[in-house]
Amino acid sequence: MKVFWVFAHPEPRSLSGALRDAGVAALREQGHEYRMSDLYAMGWDPVVTGDDFGAPAADRLLGASASKTAYRAGALRADIAAEQEKLRWADTVIIQFPLWWYGMPAILKGWFDRVFVKDFAYGVRDADTGRTLVYGNGGLVGRRAMVITTIGAPGPSIGPRGIHGHLDELLFGLQHGTLFYTGMAVVPPVAVPSADRLGAAEYERVAGYLRQRLADLPTTEPIAFRHRDSGDYDDDLVLRPDRSPDAGGLLMHAHRCMPMPPRRGSPPAPVVPTALAPPK
Amino acid sequence: MKVFWVFAHPEPRSLSGALRDAGVAALREQGHEYRMSDLYAMGWDPVVTGDDFGAPAADRLLGASASKTAYRAGALRADIAAEQEKLRWADTVIIQFPLWWYGMPAILKGWFDRVFVKDFAYGVRDADTGRTLVYGNGGLVGRRAMVITTIGAPGPSIGPRGIHGHLDELLFGLQHGTLFYTGMAVVPPVAVPSADRLGAAEYERVAGYLRQRLADLPTTEPIAFRHRDSGDYDDDLVLRPDRSPDAGGLLMHAHRCMPMPPRRGSPPAPVVPTALAPPK
Repeated sequence: MKVFWVFAHPEPRSLSGALRDAGVAALREQGHEYRMSDLYAMGWDPVVTGDDFGAPAADRLLGASASKTAYRAGALRADIAAEQEKLRWADTVIIQFPLWWYGMPAILKGWFDRVFVKDFAYGVRDADTGRTLVYGNGGLVGRRAMVITTIGAPGPSIGPRGIHGHLDELLFGLQHGTLFYTGMAVVPPVAVPSADRLGAAEYERVAGYLRQRLADLPTTEPIAFRHRDSGDYDDDLVLRPDRSPDAGGLLMHAHRCMPMPPRRGSPPAPVVPTALAPPK
Repeated sequence: MKVFWVFAHPEPRSLSGALRDAGVAALREQGHEYRMSDLYAMGWDPVVTGDDFGAPAADRLLGASASKTAYRAGALRADIAAEQEKLRWADTVIIQFPLWWYGMPAILKGWFDRVFVKDFAYGVRDADTGRTLVYGNGGLVGRRAMVITTIGAPGPSIGPRGIHGHLDELLFGLQHGTLFYTGMAVVPPVAVPSADRLGAAEYERVAGYLRQRLADLPTTEPIAFRHRDSGDYDDDLVLRPDRSPDAGGLLMHAHRCMPMPPRRGSPPAPVVPTALAPPK
């Protein structure tokens, strides 16, 4: 694999930092190439501004158009272009972060806001038909993506009926609306609940699980999100009534929905959210 | 009302900027007080670092603990303390942003990451029982909150069965996991789809709708999210099997789930997502 690992945690001596180091060591042992963007260490600027696009201050910042024009002209700021080059190089993208307020830390959200510009990541058109390619196709097609996230809450509370919402659904805007939207094949995430309370033995188990997931990554079956061109959606991009007619919620946008009841009373365990995962 | 309006768009001459100006003018006419945090205009720094907490560089950045210690000691950075003061003052909080990658722009996500620290917004304990107050109670209890968001996609595609996911669910981590989590009562959002293609007449209709929503805000029935202490959740914070037994997805965490089929073929209209809204 050619792995591009995007890491967003302010403290290298954290659980996130330890897992990142363990993961990178495993990739090396397994003979893979990797490149790392450690956003905090790089001092990554997450705020989209007109400067990104070399736009004169007097011009209106017309989001998508400004980014497309700048991308085509090679006028994007150098830090953005450098990240895009790593994405071009990679066949596998790993996005690692602690879950803050049920989403990505700002520094990582702003990596997507700034790097995933029109004509690069999305808005790419089919050369023959002129149709815009989205959801299962797009600028980043041909790549695999995997999320690694550490979560303060215990597993059941972020499971299918947990109070915080099911992790699969909390990650929907990232896994479906961003990674899959731009064409990537997204494998189930590596999620570590109860991350504030992990003992040494638990850590070893989690690190071992991560190593195994990395070893399996090239052949792991991706989440079966429905492609835009699957025939499952009508012209308004609404899921046809006969597709997942009884499924409520975001998981209807995957072919196979198998919400699993959370196990209760069991010790905290690394959770691989199962609802979007293909059947074994 | 004492309205604290948090605004996150890089371009004042945008639809978002125009709606903000129209909203503020309406508040003035209606005799309300308001304060504005225009995050781009303020140059808001969205990146959590140890500097936020006055922590020595040699100390580990232990997220929640570091923020709590700094909050209690009055050692938070001045920009954070200033935002907290506005939240203390307000009885109503408005969060306005364009939907980027199905979430908040980084500058706004990092406003929550940095301002909503432990012991201020969450982790507050009941004086009598010592229990931590979350979901319907917390540091910001007694306030109303409303999201205003502009969305490039057309209404049906972000409706209940739309390909991008239902907006109510895309906003769950913000409306439920952040605003309601810290104790606020969240009214249904003002959502403007097809925001890139709004004509002058459409704009007037949307601005009029916003003015009405602001006028109604003090008496609008909040989204009926389930309180943590409602008895609906078990000790693992999992929704009891007899609550919303047939509801799939995140909307099970509201008392009344009424997914409405999207109207198709109708012209783009301001969408008030209805699934979480109380019945009329």
